[in-house]
Amino acid sequence: MAKIAVLGYGVVGSGTVEVFYKNRESLEKKAGESLDIKYILDLRDFPDSPYKDKFTKDFNVILNDPEVTVVCEVIGGIKPSYDFVKNSLQAGKSVVTSNKELVAAKGAELLSIAKEKNVNFFFEASVGGGIPIIKPIHACLEANEIDEIAGILNGTTNFILTKMIRDGMGFEEALKIAQELGYAERNPTADVEGIDACRKICILASLSFGRHVYPENVHTEGITKVTLRDVEYMESYGAKIKLIGCARREDNDEISIGVFPAVIKDESQLAGVNDVFNAILVRGDATGDVVFYGKGAGKLPTASAVVSDIVSAVKHSDTSRSLTWADSDQKFIRPFDLFTSADYIRLATENIDVTKAVVKAVFGNVEYLSSKNQPANELAFITDVMTEKDVLAACEKVADSAEILGRIRVLDY
Amino acid sequence: MAKIAVLGYGVVGSGTVEVFYKNRESLEKKAGESLDIKYILDLRDFPDSPYKDKFTKDFNVILNDPEVTVVCEVIGGIKPSYDFVKNSLQAGKSVVTSNKELVAAKGAELLSIAKEKNVNFFFEASVGGGIPIIKPIHACLEANEIDEIAGILNGTTNFILTKMIRDGMGFEEALKIAQELGYAERNPTADVEGIDACRKICILASLSFGRHVYPENVHTEGITKVTLRDVEYMESYGAKIKLIGCARREDNDEISIGVFPAVIKDESQLAGVNDVFNAILVRGDATGDVVFYGKGAGKLPTASAVVSDIVSAVKHSDTSRSLTWADSDQKFIRPFDLFTSADYIRLATENIDVTKAVVKAVFGNVEYLSSKNQPANELAFITDVMTEKDVLAACEKVADSAEILGRIRVLDY
Repeated sequence: MAKIAVLGYGVVGSGTVEVFYKNRESLEKKAGESLDIKYILDLRDFPDSPYKDKFTKDFNVILNDPEVTVVCEVIGGIKPSYDFVKNSLQAGKSVVTSNKELVAAKGAELLSIAKEKNVNFFFEASVGGGIPIIKPIHACLEANEIDEIAGILNGTTNFILTKMIRDGMGFEEALKIAQELGYAERNPTADVEGIDACRKICILASLSFGRHVYPENVHTEGITKVTLRDVEYMESYGAKIKLIGCARREDNDEISIGVFPAVIKDESQLAGVNDVFNAILVRGDATGDVVFYGKGAGKLPTASAVVSDIVSAVKHSDTSRSLTWADSDQKFIRPFDLFTSADYIRLATENIDVTKAVVKAVFGNVEYLSSKNQPANELAFITDVMTEKDVLAACEKVADSAEILGRIRVLDY
Repeated sequence: MAKIAVLGYGVVGSGTVEVFYKNRESLEKKAGESLDIKYILDLRDFPDSPYKDKFTKDFNVILNDPEVTVVCEVIGGIKPSYDFVKNSLQAGKSVVTSNKELVAAKGAELLSIAKEKNVNFFFEASVGGGIPIIKPIHACLEANEIDEIAGILNGTTNFILTKMIRDGMGFEEALKIAQELGYAERNPTADVEGIDACRKICILASLSFGRHVYPENVHTEGITKVTLRDVEYMESYGAKIKLIGCARREDNDEISIGVFPAVIKDESQLAGVNDVFNAILVRGDATGDVVFYGKGAGKLPTASAVVSDIVSAVKHSDTSRSLTWADSDQKFIRPFDLFTSADYIRLATENIDVTKAVVKAVFGNVEYLSSKNQPANELAFITDVMTEKDVLAACEKVADSAEILGRIRVLDY
C-alpha cells in the first residue's frame, strides 16, 4: 500500500483528489499495488468535504510520517512549495508537482537531490497541462538528438490572440472576455507578458538540452503590442500570430531561446491551435517533427497529469535516470541579439517611394504584404532571415524616413 | 552490458542499427548500462557492411545465446516473425517490434507470454511510426478512462487524399505519384483498402479498452471510392476527407470500431494533417482531446521508436504492468450496423424536387451543399446523426427516385 500526501486543495489539488478516487481501481492495477491519499495539506477548513478526515495544516505531520512515500505538491509559487518539496525529497519521499515556477527556478537542484536520495521528482503537469510532453521527451524520443522545441505554451494568450484573429476583436476587449471566462487572472501580467510561457520553455529546454535554463536569462516578450492591423496583414499572408516559446540547438554547444509573438504560416501544425489549447513541437534528428496538442490548463486535464505521475512514482520507486538535467552557469545560452529569424515589419511613411528604396538598401529584397484596410501611408513586409542585431540596426536606418509601427519575428515550424 | 539482437536488416532494421550506433553514448546513459548489438539476423549477405561480423542466418544462435536479453523484430509479417518473437519471449528475452500485423493478430497471446516470463513486449513503432503513442496512452494517460480514439494512421492514403484535395488530382494519378515516390507499394492494396490502418486501430483499441480486437472483426473500407466531386463539395462545406480508424466506448461495456474515409471539419486538428503525416486523437474523460502528430512511417522515424523501446526494455527488465490487454471472444464489439454518425450523401436525379421531397421524408431535415462544378442533376447533403442501419435503409428508399453516387460518414473530432 502506497500512501500519498497532497499539498494544496485549490483547483488542481481538488481535481487530483477527484481523479484519483474516481479511477482508483484502475490506477492500482497499473501501479501494481494499492494506493491511498493519507493527507491533504491546506490552511483552510473543508468541514463538508468527504475527505475531511485527511486534512492537516501541519506539513511536519506529513514529513515525519514514514508511511507517506509520494508527496504531491500543487500549491504553486516558490514559498512555501520549495521548502516542502526539498524537505520531502531529502526525507526520501518521491515528489510530483504541477508547479512550473518552482521547476523553472529550482529544477536542477531538486532533481539532483532526488537522484542522491534515489527517489523520483516528476512534473508532467508543469508544462502543457493534460498533454503528455515531459515523459514523451525523456522516455519516447530518447533515440533522438533534439534540435529544436517550440510551443504555444500559454492558453490565456492563445485565447486572446484567437479572439483577435477570428472575431477582429482588440486586445483589451479580448483580455476582458478571457477574464470574465476565468481564463485570465485579474492581474494578467504573468500570462500576457509571456512570463508563464517563459517558465515552461525553460523546463522543456532544460530537459531537451540537458542543462538548466533559468527564466531570467530568456528574452521574453508578451502579446500586448500585437495589433489588429498586424492580424489583418497576416490574413492576406496566410499566417497566424501566436505567442511562441522556442529553443534551438546552435553550433558551439550553444542554444538560442526566447518567448515572443511570432508569425506562423497556416501550413504549420501550430497555426491551427486555437482558444485555450496548447501545442508543443519537438524536432528530433531521427523522428523529424512531432507535435503534441491538447488542453494546456484546467482542473481535470492538469489533475490527470498529476495523477499519472503519482502512479509512475509508485511504479518506479527508484529514481528516473532519464528525467534529469545538470545545473549550469548559463554561458551556453547564446545572446539573443544573435537569434536568427525572418521578420514581419510594419511602418508608416510620408513618402512610400523613398522608404521603399531605403528598405531595399538596408533589408535587401523583401516581400511586401497587403491587407484589406491598408492605409495609404503604410507598408508591411517580410524580410529574409537575419540576426536580431542586424534587424534592429536596419530598423534604425529605416526610421530616418518612416515610423516603425510593429515588428514580429517569423518562425518556420 | 545488455546485448541486443536485431531480426531483419531491411529499411527499419538498418535504420535501427544506424540510430543505435549514432546515439549509443546517450542511450547508454539513459539505459543506465552499456549496450551493444550482438547479432543481426538476415538471410542476405552484407559483405560490405561495417557490421558484417554481427550477421547470422540462424535464429537459433540468437535464441540459445543467454547473453542476448533484448530481441528486436523488424522483419514484418506473421511468418517467421511470430515464431521468432514467441520463442524469444518463452526463452525469457524481452522483445521489441515494429510489426503491426503481428501485434494486431497475436498481441494478446504475446503479451500474456511476456507477463508469464516477466519480460517486456514493446511495440511503439507499430503505430504512428516515430510518433510516441503507445507509451503515452499506457504510461501518461492512465489517469483517464479513454472514451474514444481516432487517427489518420496510414501515410500512403493520406498522401493520395492530400494530392486529390490540394491539386485536384484523381485517385489513380495520385496513387501513381505515391508509387513513384516510394510511399506506396507496387501492390497498394494493404494501404488503399484500409488494411494497414485497420491493424493499427486494432492495436490502439486493444490497448485503450483492455481487450484484444482482431482485424477480421473490424468494418474496413479504403479510399478507392472517394471522388474529386466529393472533394469539391467538402471545399464549400469547410471540411476534408481523411481515412480514419476510430474506436469508441459505447454503453453495455461494448465498443464501436471501424476504418473508413470520413468527413472531418476544418476546425479539427485532424483536418490539417497532410501528406504522409499521421495523427492520433485520444479523448480521455479527464484530459479531454489530446492529439499526437508526426511522421507515421519512414526509416529513421520508425527506427527512433524501435530504439526507444530497446532502451525501455533494458531499463525496466521486468514486465510492464500497464502495457497489456486480455484476449477476448470479440462479443464486446458492437455490430457495425449500429455505428452512429452523420452522413454526407451525393446523388443524381432526373427530378430535383421529387428527390428533395423523398430525402426530407426519409432523412428529415438535411443540410444541402453546393460545389463549384455542381451538375444540375446532382444533390449533396449532410444528414443528422443516424445508425448505419437506418442510413442504408433510407438510402434504399431514396434510390427509387435517384442514383446514390457516394456516401461518406461525417465524424466529429
